[in-house]
Amino acid sequence: PAPLAVGDYTLENRLIMGTGGITDLAALEQALIASGTTLTTVAMRRYSPETKTSVFSLLERLGIDVLPNTAGCYTVKDTVLTAELAREALETNLIKVEVIADEHTLLPDVVETLEATEQLADRGFTPMVYTSDDPAAAVRMEQAGAAAVMPLGSPIGTGLGILNPHNIELIASRAQVPVVLDAGVGAASEAAQAMELGCDAVLVASAVTRAQNPDAMARAMRLAVSAGHLSAEAGRIPRRRHAQASSAMEGRIASIEDRT
Amino acid sequence: PAPLAVGDYTLENRLIMGTGGITDLAALEQALIASGTTLTTVAMRRYSPETKTSVFSLLERLGIDVLPNTAGCYTVKDTVLTAELAREALETNLIKVEVIADEHTLLPDVVETLEATEQLADRGFTPMVYTSDDPAAAVRMEQAGAAAVMPLGSPIGTGLGILNPHNIELIASRAQVPVVLDAGVGAASEAAQAMELGCDAVLVASAVTRAQNPDAMARAMRLAVSAGHLSAEAGRIPRRRHAQASSAMEGRIASIEDRT
Amino acid sequence: PAPLAVGDYTLENRLIMGTGGITDLAALEQALIASGTTLTTVAMRRYSPETKTSVFSLLERLGIDVLPNTAGCYTVKDTVLTAELAREALETNLIKVEVIADEHTLLPDVVETLEATEQLADRGFTPMVYTSDDPAAAVRMEQAGAAAVMPLGSPIGTGLGILNPHNIELIASRAQVPVVLDAGVGAASEAAQAMELGCDAVLVASAVTRAQNPDAMARAMRLAVSAGHLSAEAGRIPRRRHAQASSAMEGRIASIEDRT
Amino acid sequence: PAPLAVGDYTLENRLIMGTGGITDLAALEQALIASGTTLTTVAMRRYSPETKTSVFSLLERLGIDVLPNTAGCYTVKDTVLTAELAREALETNLIKVEVIADEHTLLPDVVETLEATEQLADRGFTPMVYTSDDPAAAVRMEQAGAAAVMPLGSPIGTGLGILNPHNIELIASRAQVPVVLDAGVGAASEAAQAMELGCDAVLVASAVTRAQNPDAMARAMRLAVSAGHLSAEAGRIPRRRHAQASSAMEGRIASIEDRT
Repeated sequence: PAPLAVGDYTLENRLIMGTGGITDLAALEQALIASGTTLTTVAMRRYSPETKTSVFSLLERLGIDVLPNTAGCYTVKDTVLTAELAREALETNLIKVEVIADEHTLLPDVVETLEATEQLADRGFTPMVYTSDDPAAAVRMEQAGAAAVMPLGSPIGTGLGILNPHNIELIASRAQVPVVLDAGVGAASEAAQAMELGCDAVLVASAVTRAQNPDAMARAMRLAVSAGHLSAEAGRIPRRRHAQASSAMEGRIASIEDRT
Repeated sequence: PAPLAVGDYTLENRLIMGTGGITDLAALEQALIASGTTLTTVAMRRYSPETKTSVFSLLERLGIDVLPNTAGCYTVKDTVLTAELAREALETNLIKVEVIADEHTLLPDVVETLEATEQLADRGFTPMVYTSDDPAAAVRMEQAGAAAVMPLGSPIGTGLGILNPHNIELIASRAQVPVVLDAGVGAASEAAQAMELGCDAVLVASAVTRAQNPDAMARAMRLAVSAGHLSAEAGRIPRRRHAQASSAMEGRIASIEDRT
Repeated sequence: PAPLAVGDYTLENRLIMGTGGITDLAALEQALIASGTTLTTVAMRRYSPETKTSVFSLLERLGIDVLPNTAGCYTVKDTVLTAELAREALETNLIKVEVIADEHTLLPDVVETLEATEQLADRGFTPMVYTSDDPAAAVRMEQAGAAAVMPLGSPIGTGLGILNPHNIELIASRAQVPVVLDAGVGAASEAAQAMELGCDAVLVASAVTRAQNPDAMARAMRLAVSAGHLSAEAGRIPRRRHAQASSAMEGRIASIEDRT
Repeated sequence: PAPLAVGDYTLENRLIMGTGGITDLAALEQALIASGTTLTTVAMRRYSPETKTSVFSLLERLGIDVLPNTAGCYTVKDTVLTAELAREALETNLIKVEVIADEHTLLPDVVETLEATEQLADRGFTPMVYTSDDPAAAVRMEQAGAAAVMPLGSPIGTGLGILNPHNIELIASRAQVPVVLDAGVGAASEAAQAMELGCDAVLVASAVTRAQNPDAMARAMRLAVSAGHLSAEAGRIPRRRHAQASSAMEGRIASIEDRT
C-alpha cells in the first residue's frame, strides 16, 4: 500500500503496533521487526518510567516512530495533560486519544473523547482518536478535528474480531480522514477483513504480544493487512444467494436423470 | 508453509487455483503467476478441446501442475470415465473428484462422490475430493480413499465465504489427510480464515478469475493463505467475553469519579 | 411478563408499537389490537396535524397510551421544544427522545441525545432514550436521567435485526433502568432474541406496519416477545462446542465397527 | 398453524418434543403439557425397559402420540431392526430415522441414513429422517422415501442454534415433504427462526428437558414456534443496507446545520 497521510504525518506502513502486553523486550523487538511497522503506540500512563525509557530506546534504535497514547485516562483534563506531557517528552504532535468509560469494559467514552479531541486539535496536536463503532460518533470525531478515526472492532483484549462489520464499513465509506481499526483483532483474517471493509490501517497489540509466538503472529498480521488491502482494491466478486458455475458448461455428458 | 503431501504428490504452494471463469488467456497467465500457485485445476468436461489445449500449454509453460477435475459429472460412471480420460491425456494420477447433485445448486452429491472416490482409489488414482461441509461425510471420504478432503465454504460461485466455520474446524481437526477449502471464498480474509480454522490449503477460482482485477486478487489470496497459515501456527489469544487491558495499569492518575 | 416500571409510568405489555409507515388507519387499528400493545409511539413532527389527530383518536378509543417521540429533530433545542409541545398537547410526561445525526443513516447522535436527556429529565419528563448500541453511551444516558434506555438493533427501517448481540447483552446486564430494543427488528425471531439478551421490552414499527400482512406480523411479535421473555427466565442450556447425547446411552447394540 | 400431513399421519402441533435428558417423570409431564405437543419422540434403544414403559404410559395418559426413534443405531441393519421392534411394540408406522456416524459428534451418517430410509419406506414405514443440513442430501432423503426431512441446526445437545441458516432455507424452499428442524435449538428465538426460514415444525429435546425451568422453556418454545410461523406467513420487510424512515418526513423543523 501507498503511504498514508494522517494530518501532516506520513504513515509508511498500514500496520500500527501496540506495545501493551510485553513482558520481554527482546521478544517485542523481534515482533516489531517482523511486523514491518513504522509507527508504534505506547501508553504514557501505564508503564513505569523505566519501562517507558527502554521501549522508547528500542523504538528509536529500530527507527520506528512513537505514537503516544492516553490509555488510563478517564477525563478530558487528564487526557489533555497526558498529551501535553507526551508532546514535551517525545517532540511529536501525534497523539492517540483514548478516554475510557470504565475499567471493566475499557470502552471509549465518546462524549469525553469528543471534547478531548476538540481541545487537542485546538492545541495543534494531530489526534488519532479511539472511538466506538458508532458511525455517527465517528463523523463527530472527524468534525472535532480527528486526523484519523480509530473505531474498535470489539472491546480491548477480547480477540472477538469485528463484531459489527456493517458499522465499520459505514464509517470507512463516509470518512474524509483515515480510518484505523483499533482493538478486538485476534487473528490475521480479521485484520484482512478490516482492510476489506475499507479501513486504511489496522492497529494490533495483544493479538501479537500475547500470542504464543509473537514473531509469527506479527508476520501474519503484516501479510494480512497487505492481503486485505489488495483484496479491497481488486474488486471482489458480488455475493450471490445462488450458485454459479465458474465456467459455462460445454458438452456436459450426463444429466442427473442418467444416474445409475 | 512447508510442502504438503497429498498421497504421493507434493504440493509446494498452499494456494490451488482454478481456471473457471477465464475469458482471456493473458489475464489468466498473469493471475497464475501472481498467485504463486504450483497446482491448478482444469475441468475436463467444461471446455472445448481448443480451450483445454491452450490452458494445458499455458500451465506447462509456467511449470504449474495440472489437477484435472470432473466438474459437470452427475454420476459415478461419468466421473470415473472422465478421470480415466484425464489420466490418459495428462499422465497424472491426481484427480479432483466432483460429482454434482444438480445444476442449480452445484452442491456435491455425497453419496455418488463417496462411491466414485472408492472406485478411483481402487484404480490407483490420488483422489482429491470435493464434498459438503458435513464432518461425518468428510470422514467417510477419507475412509473411501480420499488423498485430500475438499469441503465447500459455501456454494460454488456465491462468494459467501465460510458459512459454517464450526464444521470446517471440526473437519480439519479430525482429518488424517490434507483438508483443502474449496468453493465459496470471495475475498482474501476468507482464505486466511480457512487456514486459521485448520485447513491445509485453499482453492480459489472465480474469486480471482472474475474479480475486477484478477492479478491483484491473486496476489491478495497468496498473501492471505500465508497469513492465515502463520496465524494458525502462532497460537492466537483466546476469545474473551470481557475486556482486558493490554498492559497492567501502573500509576493511573484519575478515576471515573474525578470526571469534570 | 409482569408490568414494567418506567419512571412512574407502568408499562403493561412488553411490546411497544410505532405508527410509522401506516398508510391505512383501519389496518393500523387491526395491527394494534393484534399486538396487544398498551403503549404506542407517535412522531410529533412527522405527521400532518390531521393525521396526528386521527391517530390520537384511534389510540384513545383503543385505550392505548401515547408515547410521543421527537423523530425528525436534529438539535437539543428542537428536541426539547418538541417534547414540551407534546406534553402540553397530550398531558403526559413520557417522551421518546430521538435526536438524529443525519437523514441518511437516521442514527442517533449520542452527544446531542445526552444533552437533551439531561434537560428533559430536569424539566420533569420521563425520558425514554433512543441511542446507539454503545454500552458506554447507554450508561451515560442512564446517568443523565433516562427512565429507559432504547438501543438500536440496526439502523431504522433496515430490518437487519440485532447486528451486535454482544453489545445489547452488555447494555442489559448493566442497566439499572429498563432496556427497550428499538429499531432494526424485521422478524419475530429477532424480537425474541432481544428479550433473551436481557431486554425488558421491544419496540417495533415498520416491521409490522410495512409487513405484507401487518395483522399477522403484530400477532407474531406479541408471541415472540412473550416467548423470548420466558426463554430468558427459563435458564437456557449452555452452548457447547461438542455434541452431547440427550440421554445417556443404555444398551446400545451395534458399534460403528459392525457397519455392513 | 394448520395441521401438517406427514405421510398419512396428521401432525396437529408444530412443536415436536423429545424425551431425552429427563430425570424426573413429573417434570417431563409438566413440560409436555406446557409445550402443547401432540407428538413426542422416544429413543427405543437408549432407555431401560422400565423407563420406556413409564414414558409410554405417560404419553398415553396425556394423549400424545409416540414417534419412536432409532437413536443409538450406527448401521442400516440395526436401524431397520429397531424400527421393526418399535412398530410391533407401539403399533405405529411412524419412525424417526437416526443413524449416527460416531458417538463423539452424534452427527448423522447420510449414506447409511439414506439406505435405511429406502428400506424403511419399502417396508411401509413413514420415515421422518434426521439428516445433516446438506441441501443435496436432503433431496436424496426425500427421493428415498422420507415422509419428512429433519435437518440439524447444529450438533445434538450443543445449543448452538442454526449454524447455517442459508442451508436450512434452501432445504425448506425445495422440499416437497415437511421439513422439521431437529437438533441444536437452545432458545426460543432459534425455534422462531427455524420457522421463519421455512421449516414446517421444530423438534426440541434437551433445550427443554435440561433447561433450569423446563416448564417455562416448554411454554417459550410453543409460543416461539407459533410466532415464527406467523412471522413467515406475514411477509417480512426486506433487509436493506441503508436506513429508511418509518414515515415520510413532513414538516421537519431543524436541519443538522442548525445544531447549536
